[in-house]
Amino acid sequence: MKGTMKAIGKWKAGPGAQVVEVPIPQVGNGEILVKVKGASICGTDVHIYEWDEWAQGRIKPPLVTGHECCGPVVEVGPGVTGFAEGDLVSLESHIPCGLCAVCRTGLQHICTNLKILGVDTAGVYADYVKIPAICAWKNDPAMPIEIATVMEPMGNAVYASLCEPVSGAAVLITGCGPVGLFATIVCRAAGAGRIFAVDINPNRLEMAKSLGAHETLNAKDGDAVVKRVLEMTGGDGADVVLEMSGAPSAIRTGFRALRKGGRFTAFGLPSKPVEIDFNNDIIFKGARVIGINGREMFQTWYKMAGLVRSGTLDPRPVITHKFPLVEFDKAMETMRSKDGKVGKVMLIP
Amino acid sequence: MKGTMKAIGKWKAGPGAQVVEVPIPQVGNGEILVKVKGASICGTDVHIYEWDEWAQGRIKPPLVTGHECCGPVVEVGPGVTGFAEGDLVSLESHIPCGLCAVCRTGLQHICTNLKILGVDTAGVYADYVKIPAICAWKNDPAMPIEIATVMEPMGNAVYASLCEPVSGAAVLITGCGPVGLFATIVCRAAGAGRIFAVDINPNRLEMAKSLGAHETLNAKDGDAVVKRVLEMTGGDGADVVLEMSGAPSAIRTGFRALRKGGRFTAFGLPSKPVEIDFNNDIIFKGARVIGINGREMFQTWYKMAGLVRSGTLDPRPVITHKFPLVEFDKAMETMRSKDGKVGKVMLIP
Amino acid sequence: MKGTMKAIGKWKAGPGAQVVEVPIPQVGNGEILVKVKGASICGTDVHIYEWDEWAQGRIKPPLVTGHECCGPVVEVGPGVTGFAEGDLVSLESHIPCGLCAVCRTGLQHICTNLKILGVDTAGVYADYVKIPAICAWKNDPAMPIEIATVMEPMGNAVYASLCEPVSGAAVLITGCGPVGLFATIVCRAAGAGRIFAVDINPNRLEMAKSLGAHETLNAKDGDAVVKRVLEMTGGDGADVVLEMSGAPSAIRTGFRALRKGGRFTAFGLPSKPVEIDFNNDIIFKGARVIGINGREMFQTWYKMAGLVRSGTLDPRPVITHKFPLVEFDKAMETMRSKDGKVGKVMLIP
Amino acid sequence: MKGTMKAIGKWKAGPGAQVVEVPIPQVGNGEILVKVKGASICGTDVHIYEWDEWAQGRIKPPLVTGHECCGPVVEVGPGVTGFAEGDLVSLESHIPCGLCAVCRTGLQHICTNLKILGVDTAGVYADYVKIPAICAWKNDPAMPIEIATVMEPMGNAVYASLCEPVSGAAVLITGCGPVGLFATIVCRAAGAGRIFAVDINPNRLEMAKSLGAHETLNAKDGDAVVKRVLEMTGGDGADVVLEMSGAPSAIRTGFRALRKGGRFTAFGLPSKPVEIDFNNDIIFKGARVIGINGREMFQTWYKMAGLVRSGTLDPRPVITHKFPLVEFDKAMETMRSKDGKVGKVMLIP
Repeated sequence: MKGTMKAIGKWKAGPGAQVVEVPIPQVGNGEILVKVKGASICGTDVHIYEWDEWAQGRIKPPLVTGHECCGPVVEVGPGVTGFAEGDLVSLESHIPCGLCAVCRTGLQHICTNLKILGVDTAGVYADYVKIPAICAWKNDPAMPIEIATVMEPMGNAVYASLCEPVSGAAVLITGCGPVGLFATIVCRAAGAGRIFAVDINPNRLEMAKSLGAHETLNAKDGDAVVKRVLEMTGGDGADVVLEMSGAPSAIRTGFRALRKGGRFTAFGLPSKPVEIDFNNDIIFKGARVIGINGREMFQTWYKMAGLVRSGTLDPRPVITHKFPLVEFDKAMETMRSKDGKVGKVMLIP
Repeated sequence: MKGTMKAIGKWKAGPGAQVVEVPIPQVGNGEILVKVKGASICGTDVHIYEWDEWAQGRIKPPLVTGHECCGPVVEVGPGVTGFAEGDLVSLESHIPCGLCAVCRTGLQHICTNLKILGVDTAGVYADYVKIPAICAWKNDPAMPIEIATVMEPMGNAVYASLCEPVSGAAVLITGCGPVGLFATIVCRAAGAGRIFAVDINPNRLEMAKSLGAHETLNAKDGDAVVKRVLEMTGGDGADVVLEMSGAPSAIRTGFRALRKGGRFTAFGLPSKPVEIDFNNDIIFKGARVIGINGREMFQTWYKMAGLVRSGTLDPRPVITHKFPLVEFDKAMETMRSKDGKVGKVMLIP
Repeated sequence: MKGTMKAIGKWKAGPGAQVVEVPIPQVGNGEILVKVKGASICGTDVHIYEWDEWAQGRIKPPLVTGHECCGPVVEVGPGVTGFAEGDLVSLESHIPCGLCAVCRTGLQHICTNLKILGVDTAGVYADYVKIPAICAWKNDPAMPIEIATVMEPMGNAVYASLCEPVSGAAVLITGCGPVGLFATIVCRAAGAGRIFAVDINPNRLEMAKSLGAHETLNAKDGDAVVKRVLEMTGGDGADVVLEMSGAPSAIRTGFRALRKGGRFTAFGLPSKPVEIDFNNDIIFKGARVIGINGREMFQTWYKMAGLVRSGTLDPRPVITHKFPLVEFDKAMETMRSKDGKVGKVMLIP
Repeated sequence: MKGTMKAIGKWKAGPGAQVVEVPIPQVGNGEILVKVKGASICGTDVHIYEWDEWAQGRIKPPLVTGHECCGPVVEVGPGVTGFAEGDLVSLESHIPCGLCAVCRTGLQHICTNLKILGVDTAGVYADYVKIPAICAWKNDPAMPIEIATVMEPMGNAVYASLCEPVSGAAVLITGCGPVGLFATIVCRAAGAGRIFAVDINPNRLEMAKSLGAHETLNAKDGDAVVKRVLEMTGGDGADVVLEMSGAPSAIRTGFRALRKGGRFTAFGLPSKPVEIDFNNDIIFKGARVIGINGREMFQTWYKMAGLVRSGTLDPRPVITHKFPLVEFDKAMETMRSKDGKVGKVMLIP
């Protein structure tokens, strides 16, 4: 497709973002072009916007940012099968090489040569985005745009929650940001026996409660959290911990509340190394700690699509705010609020 | 406990059952005595009642029959820990030896020296029943008696359905008898993406539909079933087949509708060997066929209790009839009806 | 690469094969060209040579046949990363589409749109063969050509044997053709506790014995095989059955000799449907039947390369005959011998 | 059995041990009596001998200590099936309650109410020891006493090594004490593709080498260890890390050398909490950390017996010293040597 388009991103090193007019990306072999109908904001995008240390080391301006989106395919490059114009797709943001040992053993999502959409390649905060077809996911044409927009971030929660089964299990979710909230609805849809949601912010806890957490507990008192989880599980502890906060105190609470033989799922990124009581938390407990990054390509997407199709998983209540794409600064301001009333923020190009 | 009690069972070889007055069982080392509050009828009990060939070879009168029940513990034998008078228990009917190679590798439920309650030992169609404590399952004291009564048979469905995860998966259930109906509610509670329920009886299909099957299909036309499942799964087929009928035609339909890499779960017992197209049904498909007998002791029970506790799994709508224990003949007559309106039949001592 | 090359295959419908001079294949996007240093013959190639019913329905002459080979990369097409001229590669013969639901859930080897090298595309019985880079496997440069040649068929045995662990397990291998013999050395290398090899041909049994089977048993007396396996496993039966023959009698023997909770691995292709005693062989046993086709791409290859590298797995004794490629008819005659002294037959272009 | 016997243990709080004459234990319901033919010394026994802080808090004198042993059954208590006088048994030292949630979900070895032989109950440094039959393991009658004696500690290595398959995998073993050395021979027997053994003591490394490690690396230079493992694994890292030392530096080295999607097995007990780089070591890597304590009851024992029976696993070279039981002080002195020439120390009553 010829012509130019509106896009938002990092045109110069430093905080903030710019609205620019740039050429529409030209699809090559194996690629498709998508018209962005909805996009959403990830914590990573906030880091880039704020231009923190990580962003300074990783992002090379000029760059269109953003990696969560959906929209119809408008152009199909040579060599692509299985996709056609008009297909409503969501995008997997992890772009794998396909040939490294990691890709070749079913772990494309953590490919050795991984590129991230909107971080290493031009992203989705634009009218159009191109992507290798191997990263496109075809949705039910009737899927609401809101749902299709947040499939990627919800996929983190689906992968983290369902990397091992949760049906009937007692689940402790530490951290009720967007991915923690998604995890709440995913665990609920998959029949978790009991969901304990933990956060430090009462507004977030209220959101978790309204989304189906059986019980909410304030993280401020880690001892009380552990005590309550043990009390409600016959003294055994949670079968599954989903650590979604990255807070060292939450990690410690999670391990202490974990049952023997249980699963500790590490998703939230601590800002520095964390002290772990290997003996009591992992070894004597016979625990499994499972690191989660991205989403399985595409086992996670199939499970997620099934849960959505069945009518038991609806992420829309997690989307608390919507802005036109050009009001990006306002959207970012909202994301950075600390009031605990912000779930997922959506952008409409 | 001293004294006698009312019991029902097989006092002489031949069809039918007798109501008798017998001594209350005396608990020995490691055993508990349970006052039966609710019992239910399994297909096995019908075979015994009818005194078919299998029953003639296996059952040694006199015998109190029945193996599905619940009630409070009223006596605790020496060496028992973890149970106390008043505990509301359901009973695992598979009594393992604990020392064979099968038991010692986590498969007590199919122990080499397995005894079945009400088949090899005095059963639950009585005022009281004794059982080794290792076969007792403590319920939430607030659990309704109806639910506690059918934990054992529902456990078959939980084990069959959740031996591998079903969250988000397309599930084909062939056979809508009681265990097929239980499987329907279990898969629904665990977030199956789509549940296709198949039976030959329209009334059974209606029950499956009302219990949450997304779609019901009449088994009479196997080709149409396969076609519809493929159509609704993008041509891929069902991720999971739960074969609950034992009908050779259903087994064939199930294999044909199964996706590549899918799971075929064999639970229903065919009356004779079945012809299988190994090449197309198993090998080229890369399928897994999983034989299910009984329930895992007690992983299945923990999952089931969690699902019930969460409020997403309620077996009561599957219980269509209740009779006083002494109206056993009437209950059996109901069980043997072919009208497809009978789910689970419950007995109240 | 320009020019012509010698090739062997099916130039006209009917039995036999022709030696022809054809253009060297021209690599396209994502493809590589390999100079064939060694090739070997699969049962499939015999079917094609004999022009049986299956071959008549599947093969479209003219076609260069053959799918087992190795050799150096001599040309690298556009868009290929990770391979360079001179790399010694073996070829995965299953060419997946990469975009179907099966490929996208880690099962490329049974892709819905699967093409087979030398069956659906020009094969390896030639001086050169081209292949998508996603199907090439880079070997240690020092690997002997004999080993590199048979990596593909040995991969069947590695996948079948190690789809679940065998270390310490009692393994029953039914069928001692080339893949059964490969399975013997693979199970031995992986520490199987006891390997029972079964065949109807004493010469094949002798080969199995010399390759490390702990015990060999003649299939002619299925009862004696079952009895012996039970006797040597404390009455429990084999933990793992590897069915490599496709003979209905071997399938029956395998199921009967399988322990409770054991794994029956279906690899050999029966020529027609097989009667299975679902109740006793699968359901009451709590057995898992696992269909195996091809090799996992590329988990199987990594395991296999590791076993070879460690020095514990050497397939060379299974290669009993070698011929120049142009003596293809003589090689085929050898393959078709029934004397049980033929393992793998290798061709040198 | 009536009479008294010689025993060694802790008759008074404080360092050291005493030889005493005590009554032979009287077997109760479900118990057996074993005549000790061989015993061995664990690190735990050294802690008890030295009377360190842990021992002071846990051990209640008077107590016969020791938990690794074998010998014939000489008496069988009431209610025991499956064992008879004369059976050569090894003992599982973890005595589970059998009724807690942990036991009931297949994890008896980490039972909530776990008792340890020779720590919580009278141990094996004696002429006779009694044990519940559920903790006895029947060996092949022809098994050499040396092997039968060390089945329990070797079981730690079998469980840690084979909790997931290692056949063909690159394995990094950090720590070459007795369990690290056992792990070396276990991984070798199970066909590990490459075994890197790491320790700080050159003599221990030499032992690891002689037992089959493909490569030994001195832990003193963690960077060099990581570099070498990456170099030998195509830059990918070790598939499996077996952490057998408890040293924080080894834990760090292990995580850094672990491949993406790899397994980190935590067995060695650090003396205090350890700092972990959650992001790079676990989350971005998609790693699994698996805590190992004891041995699976009895899946581990079956695998181990199979490996021994097949002739591929022989622990005898790890036993470097033998003493009469009464020379316990001398044996302890040997155990406490720092020269790196001591593997397993055996005691003969």
